Amino acid sequence: MKAVIVKPGEKDSVHLEDVPRPTLSSSNALLKIKRVGIDGTDIEINSGSYGECPTGSDYLILGHECLAVVEDIEGSSSIQKGDLVVPTVRRPDDCPNCMNGEPDMCLKGEYKEHGIRGLHGFASEFGVTDPNFLIKIPQDLENIGVLLEPVSVAEKGIYHTFKIQERLKWTPRKALVLGSGPLGLLTTFLLRLKGLEVSTVARGARGSLKSQLVERAGAEYVSTAEKPLNTLGKFDIIMEVTGVSSVAVDAQQLLNANGVMCFLGVYPPNTLSLDVGKAYTDLVLGNRTYFGSVNANKRDFEIGVSDIRQIEKNFPAVLRDMITKTVPLSEYKAAFYPDKGDIKILLDLSAGEKETKVTPLEDSI
Amino acid sequence: MKAVIVKPGEKDSVHLEDVPRPTLSSSNALLKIKRVGIDGTDIEINSGSYGECPTGSDYLILGHECLAVVEDIEGSSSIQKGDLVVPTVRRPDDCPNCMNGEPDMCLKGEYKEHGIRGLHGFASEFGVTDPNFLIKIPQDLENIGVLLEPVSVAEKGIYHTFKIQERLKWTPRKALVLGSGPLGLLTTFLLRLKGLEVSTVARGARGSLKSQLVERAGAEYVSTAEKPLNTLGKFDIIMEVTGVSSVAVDAQQLLNANGVMCFLGVYPPNTLSLDVGKAYTDLVLGNRTYFGSVNANKRDFEIGVSDIRQIEKNFPAVLRDMITKTVPLSEYKAAFYPDKGDIKILLDLSAGEKETKVTPLEDSI
Repeated sequence: MKAVIVKPGEKDSVHLEDVPRPTLSSSNALLKIKRVGIDGTDIEINSGSYGECPTGSDYLILGHECLAVVEDIEGSSSIQKGDLVVPTVRRPDDCPNCMNGEPDMCLKGEYKEHGIRGLHGFASEFGVTDPNFLIKIPQDLENIGVLLEPVSVAEKGIYHTFKIQERLKWTPRKALVLGSGPLGLLTTFLLRLKGLEVSTVARGARGSLKSQLVERAGAEYVSTAEKPLNTLGKFDIIMEVTGVSSVAVDAQQLLNANGVMCFLGVYPPNTLSLDVGKAYTDLVLGNRTYFGSVNANKRDFEIGVSDIRQIEKNFPAVLRDMITKTVPLSEYKAAFYPDKGDIKILLDLSAGEKETKVTPLEDSI
Repeated sequence: MKAVIVKPGEKDSVHLEDVPRPTLSSSNALLKIKRVGIDGTDIEINSGSYGECPTGSDYLILGHECLAVVEDIEGSSSIQKGDLVVPTVRRPDDCPNCMNGEPDMCLKGEYKEHGIRGLHGFASEFGVTDPNFLIKIPQDLENIGVLLEPVSVAEKGIYHTFKIQERLKWTPRKALVLGSGPLGLLTTFLLRLKGLEVSTVARGARGSLKSQLVERAGAEYVSTAEKPLNTLGKFDIIMEVTGVSSVAVDAQQLLNANGVMCFLGVYPPNTLSLDVGKAYTDLVLGNRTYFGSVNANKRDFEIGVSDIRQIEKNFPAVLRDMITKTVPLSEYKAAFYPDKGDIKILLDLSAGEKETKVTPLEDSI
């Protein structure tokens, strides 16, 4: 079968290749892949900075954002042949958190991740995974269900934000989202579902599709080219999704007393000169919290399914319109070398060799 | 009456003075002060760095760590004349948290604090305070009850630590306490009550009274002169009580995945060159949390009363032995200019002009 593969550690090694079709087993359901989303992690793996082959393989099939149909399954009850599903990404090691259903909170670091670390991903015609980690997707969400994996990452950050704040009496009003890529947009939509006043900040000028999507969800889009960060006032919640550490440092000044700042990015090394004394004193005198969140578990995927439906209802078609390109497997390069205006690019594996579908900006308003 | 006062903002202005005795009112109980503890905040106020007079006064009576007897009170039910009490420190403004019993989580910043900001303290023969903020102390804790205020600060940090961690399945095993001053010791004792393996780190060599108290509570005392911080392994909880930002930066490397680091100090400005990208990535990939905690509310004082009794039971006399000097009001200078081996110095207001009582090191073992 055709698959988008890399040689982990080799820069720009991504290519299409014929690889053996995986087979059903008692521990693995066989999935027929419908769509795969490509994100920053895939692009970083292709830059050679990480990624790990499965044992016994000298390549890694990419693709951890996946929507699929169960092609075949042995003896499971809740998931059946023909179900529309999204697989979670991380598979547990034997640490207490992993064994307790929280592989996203792994203590040992020996977890595996489909399409990233030690397990093939789903950018191929077929894939296999442990059926205990399949999330059922209702048929009416078929066109946007592939967004569930990035939604789950935002869900986890928000879940932890609110759990952490149970330490006090807290009624948040204003939230700041730093970044308007796919994860920034999804975080914006989810915080809007909670009724918060949301400001979403990015470098790009207003008027872009990103800014329109932010505004269609009832949030404010702020271009830092037009309005400096330090004029925005104070926020009860800050979600940092840019992965740019200098932005995060500046944004810390905007956190209200008792506020919480959630970091969802991965940050390249960046040595800065900082008044650490002031930063710690601000943390203490304002009872502030900073925390990091990575990956997600089944709970976050399950909350995500119902929130995707709610986003559709409250802010019609914002999720569909985030998908700026859907290309067949043969055109996978469009996803790895995106155009400037692209938000989310999908590989469509169900359609065979059909034409690239581009959602024009006009349609999405 | 005699009182230890400062002129806020003036360096080394602390002195003993005759000031008017405060009077009972419907909003204020009259307290006869028994003992007052002096801490770093008092010493910083005397350095001129902060402190604020009550409205209409041109001086500030110091003393926010206090044990007193209710001399007179109007129409309250739970607190009565003759009760042994400790007043909490902070008094609310009209922000939602203050109005809801959490003035320590003030959102507005217009709170007042006895002996620190806008209200006289208790380093005087008599004092007055709102009876709603008095904590009853059982008679058998009379000799150590004055430690309740610093205990409450540690209790709040620990309470928030455990509340924050309800975000996941978490069974902490190892805790690190940075600093072995009074707050570091109290934090050590409280974490030991929770059954954690505690390492308490300070600069001083082993063998000192501080190290003996740590060990009597079943914790490990680590002198950084003998054992560098980076050899200590990983910890699920880090409590930073040194107020030294370079120590805090180094200690962040010791936080286990899913761990939580609580900052309880106030940190002088200190500009350092730091790889902020790496620090944020560590936060994210390990699902780590940093938070600050200041002051305490009635809940923390109330938990503190029962924990003081439990500390007495489990680690006999460690609290008494933290008190290295008890001096009459006239010898207040001993508390503001402590000797090297001092831990907690008390002003004794009940005894009149008696001799300085020094707990010799031999007695405390």
